[in-house]
Amino acid sequence: MTRQERALRTRRMILEAAAEMFNELGYDATTISGLIDRIQLTRGGLYFHFTSKEELARGVLEEAISLDGFVPQAFKLQEWADLALLLAHRLPREPVLSAGIRLSVDIKAREMFGTRWPDWTEMGNEILTEAKDRGELLPHVDPCETARLFVGAWTGVHLLTEVLPDGDLSKEVSGLLALVLPNVACAGVLAKLDTSPYRAERLLVAAGVPQPS
Amino acid sequence: MTRQERALRTRRMILEAAAEMFNELGYDATTISGLIDRIQLTRGGLYFHFTSKEELARGVLEEAISLDGFVPQAFKLQEWADLALLLAHRLPREPVLSAGIRLSVDIKAREMFGTRWPDWTEMGNEILTEAKDRGELLPHVDPCETARLFVGAWTGVHLLTEVLPDGDLSKEVSGLLALVLPNVACAGVLAKLDTSPYRAERLLVAAGVPQPS
Repeated sequence: MTRQERALRTRRMILEAAAEMFNELGYDATTISGLIDRIQLTRGGLYFHFTSKEELARGVLEEAISLDGFVPQAFKLQEWADLALLLAHRLPREPVLSAGIRLSVDIKAREMFGTRWPDWTEMGNEILTEAKDRGELLPHVDPCETARLFVGAWTGVHLLTEVLPDGDLSKEVSGLLALVLPNVACAGVLAKLDTSPYRAERLLVAAGVPQPS
Repeated sequence: MTRQERALRTRRMILEAAAEMFNELGYDATTISGLIDRIQLTRGGLYFHFTSKEELARGVLEEAISLDGFVPQAFKLQEWADLALLLAHRLPREPVLSAGIRLSVDIKAREMFGTRWPDWTEMGNEILTEAKDRGELLPHVDPCETARLFVGAWTGVHLLTEVLPDGDLSKEVSGLLALVLPNVACAGVLAKLDTSPYRAERLLVAAGVPQPS
């Protein structure tokens, strides 16, 4: 492993530990000292990568938009569904992704760092706009409004699923797509979409993304 | 005003001020001393009603289920839409309601006090189950799943609307209903539902609920 590879791994390890702490304790209660205890790194080793809690939060939010497993599909609406399903599959397994949402719903952190919701909304809007141009959408659908409402709906379904006994985010998001898509997709396209809760795992394996056991 | 009326008003005033602080500062950063400063009440005056921050949070969550303005309708689905629209209209105007959600998305507060999401979900489930019995729903609709997904979607749309420039929750929730209802209601019923963003205000005025100017 080169020095650069080692540095990248350390950076990633720090970011994941910080994300776990944001998730467990919230932004306010997370401290640099607590992080150092957890990762058994010297203060100097940490400061080489991140010099403050603010920088760690920014690092988490920078990585909160991630397209692992996403590949172009015949229908743009399948791509829209895939984004939702991939994130639902990965979020409970990747603390950096869940910490991104945790920071977005925390008043203090949100004021300091903003949220990534506008980026997700814009990405959905672009996909739905192209879906509209290709004739995949029902005529009444407004891509921008639909993209925005869906990012909100996805986020809230995630928050509720956290408190459900045995809550399974992939299953809930699959249900959300089944609730919304029949009023978005034209019938022929709808019949060809795969919104199964297992789809994301298949996409990730096909893309060669290592799966945690 | 009788002594009892005065006590009830003071209790309400305290709860609203505490809710404002939960909204502005979060649960952790809210303190009893800060609350006393804000409401200009003696410590004894406060303690007659609430003796701790925990009690204040519980008081807020107790009032987070509120049916002001809700009246039985010819269609159960209209009642379901009315709940969503009434809460959307009231939430930005009533700190106690928004603080209920704020406490539910705060990790520490949620662990201590739970959330009211199961209660909202159960209420939606009861209404949708009766709608199903009356033949208002499309045949594939599962009342329980739909109620749960909708409470999640509503919550997330609220959170996103908070960060939208000029976000209007009544308009967003009206849009969410328009996105979801065509895949829930049978066509004849759908055409008779009113999901306008202005409906809640009309319901509240008709019910004689005083409207803040």
